[in-house]
Amino acid sequence: MSRDPYPTDGADPPDTLADEAACMRRALELAARGEGAVEPNPMVGCVVARRTDAGAYRVVGEGWHARFGGPHAEAAALAQAGDKARGATLFVTLEPCAHTGKTPPCVEAILHAGVERVFAAVRDPDPRVDGGGFERLRREGVACEVGQGGAEALRLLAPYLKLQQRGLPWVIAKWAMTLDGKIAAAGGDSQWISGDESRKQVHRLRGVVDAVVVGPGTLAADDPLLTARPPGPRVPLRIVVGLTRPGPPTRRLFDSLADGPVLAAVGADYPASDAEALRSRGVEVLVTEGQDLGGIAACTLEELGRRRLTNVLVEGGGGLLGALFDRDAIDEARVFLAPKVIGGAGAPGPVAGTGLERIADARVFEPLSCEQFGDDLCVTTRRRPPL
Amino acid sequence: MSRDPYPTDGADPPDTLADEAACMRRALELAARGEGAVEPNPMVGCVVARRTDAGAYRVVGEGWHARFGGPHAEAAALAQAGDKARGATLFVTLEPCAHTGKTPPCVEAILHAGVERVFAAVRDPDPRVDGGGFERLRREGVACEVGQGGAEALRLLAPYLKLQQRGLPWVIAKWAMTLDGKIAAAGGDSQWISGDESRKQVHRLRGVVDAVVVGPGTLAADDPLLTARPPGPRVPLRIVVGLTRPGPPTRRLFDSLADGPVLAAVGADYPASDAEALRSRGVEVLVTEGQDLGGIAACTLEELGRRRLTNVLVEGGGGLLGALFDRDAIDEARVFLAPKVIGGAGAPGPVAGTGLERIADARVFEPLSCEQFGDDLCVTTRRRPPL
Ligand SMILES: NC(=O)c1ccc[n+]([C@@H]2O[C@H](COP(=O)([O-])OP(=O)(O)OC[C@H]3O[C@@H](n4cnc5c(N)ncnc54)[C@H](OP(=O)(O)O)[C@@H]3O)[C@@H](O)[C@H]2O)c1
Ligand SMILES: NC(=O)c1ccc[n+]([C@@H]2O[C@H](COP(=O)([O-])OP(=O)(O)OC[C@H]3O[C@@H](n4cnc5c(N)ncnc54)[C@H](OP(=O)(O)O)[C@@H]3O)[C@@H](O)[C@H]2O)c1
Repeated sequence: MSRDPYPTDGADPPDTLADEAACMRRALELAARGEGAVEPNPMVGCVVARRTDAGAYRVVGEGWHARFGGPHAEAAALAQAGDKARGATLFVTLEPCAHTGKTPPCVEAILHAGVERVFAAVRDPDPRVDGGGFERLRREGVACEVGQGGAEALRLLAPYLKLQQRGLPWVIAKWAMTLDGKIAAAGGDSQWISGDESRKQVHRLRGVVDAVVVGPGTLAADDPLLTARPPGPRVPLRIVVGLTRPGPPTRRLFDSLADGPVLAAVGADYPASDAEALRSRGVEVLVTEGQDLGGIAACTLEELGRRRLTNVLVEGGGGLLGALFDRDAIDEARVFLAPKVIGGAGAPGPVAGTGLERIADARVFEPLSCEQFGDDLCVTTRRRPPL
Repeated sequence: MSRDPYPTDGADPPDTLADEAACMRRALELAARGEGAVEPNPMVGCVVARRTDAGAYRVVGEGWHARFGGPHAEAAALAQAGDKARGATLFVTLEPCAHTGKTPPCVEAILHAGVERVFAAVRDPDPRVDGGGFERLRREGVACEVGQGGAEALRLLAPYLKLQQRGLPWVIAKWAMTLDGKIAAAGGDSQWISGDESRKQVHRLRGVVDAVVVGPGTLAADDPLLTARPPGPRVPLRIVVGLTRPGPPTRRLFDSLADGPVLAAVGADYPASDAEALRSRGVEVLVTEGQDLGGIAACTLEELGRRRLTNVLVEGGGGLLGALFDRDAIDEARVFLAPKVIGGAGAPGPVAGTGLERIADARVFEPLSCEQFGDDLCVTTRRRPPL
């Protein structure tokens, strides 16, 4: 594996793990290292371990799906384990594949290596697998148990599963707001609400998603580049959704094509001459059938799904996020909360649009984590029930 | 000590503490138990301990100032230590008093008990003490060290110090907001944004502060009682600031005088007949010179300071909090963040008013803690630099 986007800070891999749950947790940790490098494939991690007399597990091989087209997690872990895989237990976060894709089927490798037992966190809903992996293994006498770490694995796989099942990318809304819930001062000034460490985190995020999206108001107010600085494993497609005003757009975004592709998604009534001006600079113009910001955004997401983009980061502003929220199109919200107060009845909040009428109808976003970046908090939440 | 508002969940007091820092931390823990019961006195905690051969401290007495007019922390801890105080070290969160107030001076009790060394977190700025305690102790050969745990002690004492030094109560702004920074839906519906456990915490808070305050819009929209349910160590004065509309107010607040006193702070132009109607129900009407909501609120705070109220909890709405924020009159913000999204450009945020123009000028509120209540987060922050 030539490139590991998340080196383990020099931490040695574990030698012995206490039980099956610990082995699966480790496999999940390994899986997450593929973020940004494997999509639209799923992130998968694998641990091969031998049971000790004390009932713990001695790790003999670890692996993860590290890049699209590269070896699967099981193959990597088995290669590391070598002969020690014989009679060992294999922990994998997703059902092993039974079909030949870009790489040979993992079940064959598992059988060939002489693994005795397989723990898988979840069954692969991919119609080419869908229980077929377990079936083949069991037929050959390998015990299979499914479900250990399942909830966590499903969380990790949610974007993959959404794309596979609904043909739509996973929409991550990100905003930085003050303690009093504002993303800008009343006059529009918004730099910087969050601190250095939070902004680093946003750049990290941009480097693992397939696309970074803003609305036209944000393009006008902030003139953002939307690149990941420093770059991550993936160069995101940078998108502005819903430009309406005619006139030659002079924006840093449209002058940075060397840093990665840029797409402008517009409505059918967008002036052809403006579209031409953008195209002549190298910007891809996607003319959608959307009638308003929400419609254009929805058409754009459909197109991104057709192109098999897995994760899309929407960075605002309130108009675009409100339009998406009104269509219940936000899967995940990452809120950076900065400990400062700006005040002002006129200062904008993160999610405008029409909104819901009653608090009782407010959409619940399940909290997944709360991290600290400098003095800021970052709360990561997901729409519940999952879309 | 007949009543301990914060029983230690049955946890036994510590037997041995590792070092001076641990002893002072314990004293600070004890001090906090007086919250709501001692004001306008300071919260003070005390540990009497004997140094072991290993350099640790064996606790022989603990105490805290448990109620206004009751024994001071030192007296309580020394009483518990008895003879074991001779030659021991005393840790106290505030300089021991050298003057006779409601109780005899603590320095005399310390000398009488034969304590050898005193660690105090901070010097008492009360002009009747102000270093006099240390002076007297040192004169009698007792070693005194000041500063251990000082920052934490100052945080605990900040409301006491503000009242003493500026004659104004400590203003705690509390709001419950959605992930998208709203305190109500666009139409005004606001019940309930936060969950049961958060609301319990708010009731706990109401039971330790001297007053709970809302603005007229909140009175009209939510018709709140503002009582602590269940009651805490203190019955707060319930205040509505800035009523303007004439007409007989029929509000639960004005029908609940049996649950505690109610004050309506109004401007000079408030109709005398309306004031009379309120008074006839038992509501105290404070006619201030304030010209607008902010002015009335400021005059009210001054009056509360004259009455020696230490902590005032302002529960909104956005109009009142904005008016206070515009005057930089908020000392502490407790933000309950509920993991749900309501959306809507018209939904109100927690701090309206004029606000500040540039994010660079936003007022910094230092984060003190982030606690979880059910699925909600509660972020406690304080204005930095302290007002
Ligand atoms: N703190 C954060 O995380 C964060 C992130 C992003 C943005 N922001 C701030 O949010 C604000 C922008 O939010 P927003 O809701 O206005 O914008 P937006 O969501 O990016 O875009 C939507 C709005 O842009 C306007 N618009 C349409 N075409 C336009 C064009 N060609 N040029 C300029 N504006 C056009 C439309 O409003 P009209 O038709 O009324 O013009 C529309 O409602 C800025 O102050 C920005 O700094 C903050
Ligand atoms: N989630 C929370 O933590 C929380 C806490 C408190 C309140 N809230 C919500 O916040 C909203 C209230 O906020 P707010 O800023 O409007 O109110 P507020 O801060 O309580 O009071 C200020 C506003 O009340 C209005 N007002 C003046 N005299 C009045 C009277 N006699 N009767 C009725 N209104 C009068 C004034 O606006 P006008 O002159 O324009 O009428 C004034 O701006 C409600 O929806 C409430 O549910 C939420």
